[in-house]
Amino acid sequence: MSENEIRFRSDVTVQLVKSAAQDGDVVFAARVSTQGEQTLATAGEDATARDKGLIRYLMRDRHGSPFEHNSFTFYVEAPIFVFREFMRHRIASYNEESGRYREMRPVFYVPSRERNLVQVGKPGAYVFEPGTADQHELVEESVRTESTSAYRSYQRMLEAGVAREVARTVLPLNLYSSMYTTMNARALMNFLSLRTKKDNAAFPSFPQREIEMVAEQMEEYFRQAMPLTHAAFEDGGRIAP
Amino acid sequence: MSENEIRFRSDVTVQLVKSAAQDGDVVFAARVSTQGEQTLATAGEDATARDKGLIRYLMRDRHGSPFEHNSFTFYVEAPIFVFREFMRHRIASYNEESGRYREMRPVFYVPSRERNLVQVGKPGAYVFEPGTADQHELVEESVRTESTSAYRSYQRMLEAGVAREVARTVLPLNLYSSMYTTMNARALMNFLSLRTKKDNAAFPSFPQREIEMVAEQMEEYFRQAMPLTHAAFEDGGRIAP
Amino acid sequence: MSENEIRFRSDVTVQLVKSAAQDGDVVFAARVSTQGEQTLATAGEDATARDKGLIRYLMRDRHGSPFEHNSFTFYVEAPIFVFREFMRHRIASYNEESGRYREMRPVFYVPSRERNLVQVGKPGAYVFEPGTADQHELVEESVRTESTSAYRSYQRMLEAGVAREVARTVLPLNLYSSMYTTMNARALMNFLSLRTKKDNAAFPSFPQREIEMVAEQMEEYFRQAMPLTHAAFEDGGRIAP
Amino acid sequence: MSENEIRFRSDVTVQLVKSAAQDGDVVFAARVSTQGEQTLATAGEDATARDKGLIRYLMRDRHGSPFEHNSFTFYVEAPIFVFREFMRHRIASYNEESGRYREMRPVFYVPSRERNLVQVGKPGAYVFEPGTADQHELVEESVRTESTSAYRSYQRMLEAGVAREVARTVLPLNLYSSMYTTMNARALMNFLSLRTKKDNAAFPSFPQREIEMVAEQMEEYFRQAMPLTHAAFEDGGRIAP
Repeated sequence: MSENEIRFRSDVTVQLVKSAAQDGDVVFAARVSTQGEQTLATAGEDATARDKGLIRYLMRDRHGSPFEHNSFTFYVEAPIFVFREFMRHRIASYNEESGRYREMRPVFYVPSRERNLVQVGKPGAYVFEPGTADQHELVEESVRTESTSAYRSYQRMLEAGVAREVARTVLPLNLYSSMYTTMNARALMNFLSLRTKKDNAAFPSFPQREIEMVAEQMEEYFRQAMPLTHAAFEDGGRIAP
Repeated sequence: MSENEIRFRSDVTVQLVKSAAQDGDVVFAARVSTQGEQTLATAGEDATARDKGLIRYLMRDRHGSPFEHNSFTFYVEAPIFVFREFMRHRIASYNEESGRYREMRPVFYVPSRERNLVQVGKPGAYVFEPGTADQHELVEESVRTESTSAYRSYQRMLEAGVAREVARTVLPLNLYSSMYTTMNARALMNFLSLRTKKDNAAFPSFPQREIEMVAEQMEEYFRQAMPLTHAAFEDGGRIAP
Repeated sequence: MSENEIRFRSDVTVQLVKSAAQDGDVVFAARVSTQGEQTLATAGEDATARDKGLIRYLMRDRHGSPFEHNSFTFYVEAPIFVFREFMRHRIASYNEESGRYREMRPVFYVPSRERNLVQVGKPGAYVFEPGTADQHELVEESVRTESTSAYRSYQRMLEAGVAREVARTVLPLNLYSSMYTTMNARALMNFLSLRTKKDNAAFPSFPQREIEMVAEQMEEYFRQAMPLTHAAFEDGGRIAP
Repeated sequence: MSENEIRFRSDVTVQLVKSAAQDGDVVFAARVSTQGEQTLATAGEDATARDKGLIRYLMRDRHGSPFEHNSFTFYVEAPIFVFREFMRHRIASYNEESGRYREMRPVFYVPSRERNLVQVGKPGAYVFEPGTADQHELVEESVRTESTSAYRSYQRMLEAGVAREVARTVLPLNLYSSMYTTMNARALMNFLSLRTKKDNAAFPSFPQREIEMVAEQMEEYFRQAMPLTHAAFEDGGRIAP
């Protein structure tokens, strides 16, 4: 496949680049507050039932700072409209690929047939419904036509010597981009509480499906790295401490 | 002009919605550190030569916190690719119009003939040159064609009952959006130091012209509200304290 | 009374230095998201029933950003142990008087007879009880003796030419200090949710009484400036959006 | 030595609890901006001369975000007056031992004979001089007397059943405390630029010696973990990007 052949995807990718995050980090940080330097002496121990109780207590009483001494770095590939929402979260670090420094590759998002297309109800209480086959066809055709046309214009301008930062302005919001993002578990829980829609959540949230797809992959990495913290988050109504 | 008639603009708009910001705020905050409660007693005085010296000293020695006790709220209209860069600044507050909650209006950015189109040199040392008439025509035609086509597709999808959050994904990065943003003078100076290109700047910066157009308007409001602070920023090489 | 005569206080002081904060700011910022530039046209209107509903909806669904386009600057006089807790709140600006730049005045905190002195129960569920007259006398005498002695040592060192930053290290945590602090309504609500103890709060909090005394005064200024926002905060269980 | 025997120290302790920080993190994050997903393919390579040049370029042109995808967690033991300054740095995470939750141990800071005691000159241009033997003796005696007396009062109140949070208020600022703190390299460089005094620094800084002692130990861990980044910081005048 040529570099410039236009591709369409309906998924998003999240890779865990690195993490320095385990439940023990929460426990040791919390114990500094209550026990002083003995904390370090026990740093090698496994998380026990007592740790589990401590984490639940911290979460419930919103002692948020012990959840900050850890970090997750993710590499995310998603459409630009997802990054636009993602970067509204300010307690995180970002490096996104730059359309000023490099030529964007022709990869575009098109909703899959599983993606609900029709929104009913009022703001704050939207419900999504699947959409008809006709609606899906219209979306697919529109997305494919506009993406292809825009990318061809982009290339023509680049070939004519126009600066990348100017030419890119015709590209649509469904273009894929990629980024590194680093955040700690507290910020991650806040992200998840707002960008996933779960039945056990204490507060309603109405994330756009595509950022939720990113959030779900991030949550799985979080669950694996910090199972006790994740369980306390779940059981407490998915409220960030 | 009908609501759905496509319009093209080559400018950006910045309005000062409100500000609570004057040079005296810097002085009084700094004097809390050095003089305690006498500060309040003098709060009514005009900024004097002594204030001017104090502000310069704070700027030069990077005592940043006295520059934070003030705030500017701007209403900005600019293309999405500008907002993408803008929102990377995390020490600020944002509310942007939402393509999930409302139908986007058909207003698109097209570079004016004054906008340099050709980039020469290496990363970190780019220089821009005007571009030929042919290049300008190609850009204008490409922008007009793609914007119009994308907006028509967007409307067709909306008319067919597709959710706004899905339909909007075909819209290009040169679509205008608008936002409220609030920040203090310290954050604003950091923004200006990175998003304007001035000869007297101690550090190089290579902002995209369109965000610089926004920054220049913000700077003018800043200069009017806090002339001594702005002068100290200018004279000190445009380094945020 | 001489400058160096030692004084004892049992209260804290909060003055509103300035604010640029009203309910309308929340409404207009939120409407940028949903209505675009029409927002500005209605900026002069009074907050209405519709505004009230909008603010409640934003609070309930945790749309926090519209609550950030405003600012409060307070001047606070309180003991150092209060500032130690206060400055753990990172989404705020601070300028505190500096014991490196100026001689500290001899004002010290002593608990009043109304201040509960005895703590019973376990961490996370402490209850305070009044304390006996003997306990109150012991506290008062200890505080007065130690404060006086420490301040005399401080002065002796200053008189002997020792640097302020060294001499001050013998001063106790009940010494009064003062600061300017600036924050927006969202950060303020977060502060209040953690630093006051109210029956209608959805989450438990166990603030030290002295920081709660500061918080209560801040809350009163907030209530006056933004009554609809404050009411929505109260009715929603005092959860910051 | 009994738990309650009063001890005096003249040093501070910084331990690196954990770090996830290497020069490669900077390079890979920066390359996301310029090269997209190829970044990951080269993630295993050693930092090379090319990496060195890239890091220098990022530092010089103030591309700060690539320096954020890493983290350092330190355990710090220092007097409270040091923590008071430390926690003014808001881009970091903190858990300090709590005088509300535990009884403070009787460890106090006393300046060593090497600590300069006398400050001459004006604000912004202070110079410190050693001080005489008499001055040193006065400081030592004052510190020992006040610390001991305050701690005895503290204990008497605790024994009489007074709550820890009340009794602690008589303790002086030279009492040792301890904390976990986590920050990334960008925040760390900002901390170092303000809290150390080096000849090659582009900007003046006048840190109190005791926080500088903490900063110097942190810097050594930073230098070991990220030698290329540290060298670029040094060579560039110790300006945080």
